[in-house]
Amino acid sequence: MARGEEPLLVQRPSSEHSNDSQIAEEDALLTGQPSPRNEASSRYKRWREIGLFTWALLATAVVIILATLYQHQQTEQRNDDHNDAWAPLGKRNLIFMVSDGMGPTSLSLTRSFRQYKDHLLYNDTLVLDKLLIGQSRTRSSNTLVTDSAAGATAFSCAQKSYNGAISVLPGSFQPCGTVLEAAKRAGYMTGLVVTTRITDATPACFASHVRRREMEDQIALQLIGEGPLGRTVDLMLGGGRCHFVPKGREGACRVDGADVIKVAEEKGWNYVGDREGFDGLKLGSAVELPLLGLFADTDIPYEIDRRFDGETYPSLEEMAKTALKALSEATRDSEKGFFLMIEGSRIDHAGHSNDPAAQVHEVLAYDRAVSAVLKFLENDGTTGIMVATSDHETGGLATARQLHSTYPDYLWYPSVLANTTHSGEHIASIYHSHLSSLPSRSQSSTEESSQPLRNFLTTLVSQTLGINDTSPQEIESLIEHPAIAEYTFADVTSRRSQIGWSTHGHSAVDVNVYSSDARAASALVGNHENTEIGEFLRRYLGVEDEVEKVTELLRGEMDLLSESGDGGELESWLGGVPKEGERLDGQDHLGRYAGDFQAQEAC
Amino acid sequence: MARGEEPLLVQRPSSEHSNDSQIAEEDALLTGQPSPRNEASSRYKRWREIGLFTWALLATAVVIILATLYQHQQTEQRNDDHNDAWAPLGKRNLIFMVSDGMGPTSLSLTRSFRQYKDHLLYNDTLVLDKLLIGQSRTRSSNTLVTDSAAGATAFSCAQKSYNGAISVLPGSFQPCGTVLEAAKRAGYMTGLVVTTRITDATPACFASHVRRREMEDQIALQLIGEGPLGRTVDLMLGGGRCHFVPKGREGACRVDGADVIKVAEEKGWNYVGDREGFDGLKLGSAVELPLLGLFADTDIPYEIDRRFDGETYPSLEEMAKTALKALSEATRDSEKGFFLMIEGSRIDHAGHSNDPAAQVHEVLAYDRAVSAVLKFLENDGTTGIMVATSDHETGGLATARQLHSTYPDYLWYPSVLANTTHSGEHIASIYHSHLSSLPSRSQSSTEESSQPLRNFLTTLVSQTLGINDTSPQEIESLIEHPAIAEYTFADVTSRRSQIGWSTHGHSAVDVNVYSSDARAASALVGNHENTEIGEFLRRYLGVEDEVEKVTELLRGEMDLLSESGDGGELESWLGGVPKEGERLDGQDHLGRYAGDFQAQEAC
Repeated sequence: MARGEEPLLVQRPSSEHSNDSQIAEEDALLTGQPSPRNEASSRYKRWREIGLFTWALLATAVVIILATLYQHQQTEQRNDDHNDAWAPLGKRNLIFMVSDGMGPTSLSLTRSFRQYKDHLLYNDTLVLDKLLIGQSRTRSSNTLVTDSAAGATAFSCAQKSYNGAISVLPGSFQPCGTVLEAAKRAGYMTGLVVTTRITDATPACFASHVRRREMEDQIALQLIGEGPLGRTVDLMLGGGRCHFVPKGREGACRVDGADVIKVAEEKGWNYVGDREGFDGLKLGSAVELPLLGLFADTDIPYEIDRRFDGETYPSLEEMAKTALKALSEATRDSEKGFFLMIEGSRIDHAGHSNDPAAQVHEVLAYDRAVSAVLKFLENDGTTGIMVATSDHETGGLATARQLHSTYPDYLWYPSVLANTTHSGEHIASIYHSHLSSLPSRSQSSTEESSQPLRNFLTTLVSQTLGINDTSPQEIESLIEHPAIAEYTFADVTSRRSQIGWSTHGHSAVDVNVYSSDARAASALVGNHENTEIGEFLRRYLGVEDEVEKVTELLRGEMDLLSESGDGGELESWLGGVPKEGERLDGQDHLGRYAGDFQAQEAC
Repeated sequence: MARGEEPLLVQRPSSEHSNDSQIAEEDALLTGQPSPRNEASSRYKRWREIGLFTWALLATAVVIILATLYQHQQTEQRNDDHNDAWAPLGKRNLIFMVSDGMGPTSLSLTRSFRQYKDHLLYNDTLVLDKLLIGQSRTRSSNTLVTDSAAGATAFSCAQKSYNGAISVLPGSFQPCGTVLEAAKRAGYMTGLVVTTRITDATPACFASHVRRREMEDQIALQLIGEGPLGRTVDLMLGGGRCHFVPKGREGACRVDGADVIKVAEEKGWNYVGDREGFDGLKLGSAVELPLLGLFADTDIPYEIDRRFDGETYPSLEEMAKTALKALSEATRDSEKGFFLMIEGSRIDHAGHSNDPAAQVHEVLAYDRAVSAVLKFLENDGTTGIMVATSDHETGGLATARQLHSTYPDYLWYPSVLANTTHSGEHIASIYHSHLSSLPSRSQSSTEESSQPLRNFLTTLVSQTLGINDTSPQEIESLIEHPAIAEYTFADVTSRRSQIGWSTHGHSAVDVNVYSSDARAASALVGNHENTEIGEFLRRYLGVEDEVEKVTELLRGEMDLLSESGDGGELESWLGGVPKEGERLDGQDHLGRYAGDFQAQEAC
């Protein structure tokens, strides 16, 4: 190579040391005139030409190899950089997972519980722990503590909205196009998998638009395609059947007579409504889309209870596997992949109930679903990513609880959670059944006559919570306030495990963000607003423009309905504009305290 | 380039379309024999040779350029990879920051407080927020909830130990060499900056070894170099003077007559003991090492109180700047840089007191110190990194608190914290002074006679906490339990801001990890054991082997003392072996609950 670097003219040797043939050849090259011909010179010339050609050829080959390598590395480098505008090329799948209500403390709680229960080492972690990439700031547009509706709107529309908003924006109360709707229109297949009602805030925000989250009857209709955009979801698995069943029929909670399952089937949906139907899907290999699977009237039972009733209800992991397989098969020959949202919905509910035993099993079930998603991504040929986060924390959970005025011990007791076989919700339902079976409501009667109930409760707590030192106060509380027995059972466990809670509602702590691919999700590494997660989702799928088009379509429909009718159709679609100060699962506040601080019962 | 890729023989055109000179030249190249000469052919040949040569030359030049670029990129790529064994080359500085007791919730609490107070946008973050790289799992060797001693031993020795251990190991109770001691021996300069006592657990763990953290008199001696290793620290700034002053002298808390400041000065330490002395250091440009600066008998006041008394106490930021400048100057001509530990010590104390107003000011003060460290690193010519984390969470803090049995509002009130001018600690000291100024202890007397005290307290709360709706119960609690007035004042603020706490002790939630350089600290990106942070520190400085040597030295000294004497010297150095089950600021437990769950006063 050193030879090649030397310029020709400089290399020309002095005449003293050169021979004639060389001079002749070089002169010929320089002047274009031949020097006197001789045979040796001619042979040399030919070999020199061959040499030059070989050199040029080799150098060119090396150029090609190096250029390819360089380009490849540059692409990798680009992917590595925290480049917010980055998106992969070609076909790709995006699995977005939401652990509703799971704050940072849920992880240490569940990790230590699992280590205790399974006799693992202190550094044996959850699957999630290996995927941590950052945290998300969760406040909504109108308060420091978000609800799931505003939380999911930040993911679906990439905008802050008010608590209670299902993909509509604050101020204007106009709908905003979602990443799922845009993905569908761009040619992706789409899916929603949850353990709560499929009409609940988180799934609703991806494929419907209403101004109040409680409009679940309307959400059910929009989810199956009865909205302005038609059908945007290809697969739904979860609970919430009661919003699809007409008023008056068994298991209904609709306030109207619409038979949404029938409408869905007429529109081409394949419906399964029980475990047998789910088993028929063969974990996704026997699915025909669109698929609507509703496996409970309302919520699928907590994992801590469901594990004994797997013959009735599928697990989150099973539903996730089914969705992944079905969507993967359905997009096998497509240029586009799929967008799937999977929610561990009831971590939140366990937080609301302040039920640590229910919570650890919910988080473990979610962790297994995460593991299934990772395995899918590893084995699937299509480029794909999993991004997971929570919408908010629930309960103000703390892995430490001071029970006495003396300085607390530095510990908490996973053994108490390990002894607990059921959720407070489940045990309360046993208690309530028992109460209704009693001839008269003896619980409010004399000390003496309520002794059998005391015995029943003491035994119930012992059998389900594994706790044999219930106090008279705890039993009396259950007898006096059966309506909040679920909370009381959970409190019996919380106190003994020394797990603390500060509220039955949500809190404002930042939540964790996880991904299967920290490089591809580099825009989410570190601490970010929840809306940045929404921005990542649409960017990863390359549907930013399509989202804008969907928004325009929805606004056009809104304008049309506003102009043409009396507003009735618009109201039945989006709901009325919330009144100033109306509580929509949170409340407007400017951060200024205005009285009312005293603890009454809860603390 | 396409031309270059075509093999020569294939390119040969068919004879029909070729002219004679071309054939002749190609034959000559192939056979080595000249074809009949003509002038046009010769000219062409020469130009072809020039062309070939130019091609070869250009291709070679491109090879060189590409090879250089490729090599450069490969080096960058190597640095990017999550290579746990990676360490920088050459001179370098390491600043390790500890936010004692700061859990994930402290960040959202402080961020929203600052936004409210300074009228900032919702996405205006703390400096720390921009540096988040992961989380640390904090449990100690003997319990799920660590104390600061075991927490700091994980950093200093990279090993799990028992609560109460100051860089000694569980089981053997033998000392372990620390990163600071090893760094000093390897030629680095070293420093410790804190806002609590310099003899408290976190700083102690870096440069002393005792079996019980409460041996602060002994720790003071070891810190100035009266241990087996001699002096390992070059700079100490903080509080805790009382452990350096002989018993009987004003401001002393030593139980012996040792004048540790005098001993230090005899050993060559430069001592400053007040704000005037601190100002003389000119933020580090007038420092002579070794430097011992002790600015309070015990803790430096909380930032919320100190800000009104800056003429007495330096801030954490000022001390940090001083240390950075001094150590940087002192290592200017050295081959090695420095290791500096900076602790926001009293975030923990605000957690113990459940005092949210004190806490937000502590976190903001820490954030300003972080900012100063970042600026130093940006402007300093030496390679350097800042890694920051907490040892544990304190208080079970939650940014939401349910005060009533009705479903809670989704909010909390930063305004209440903004109105608070002082810590509960400070207000309690005013109250206690007032009580001791009273002629007789009237607080325990009749309803009527305690009315002046009620008025005093109502006014005090109004003036310091900005709260004008204190309840009779709150005032009575202050009168009846003056010893815990600090907690009660903080509770008055906590309730009204709707900030929750679950304990006056620590909790087990994972804590955040931050760095100025996510690439260099890539081994800490994600979720890690706190011991991995300790491993990173020694690896970054390249002192892994030196740490082992220090450990051997310490063990040798221990063996020597064990063999030679009656154990008295060994006991006075390390302390006696803790008894089985002895509480050392935590307690042994196997995770199994054994009764005692009832709430008494605290909840």
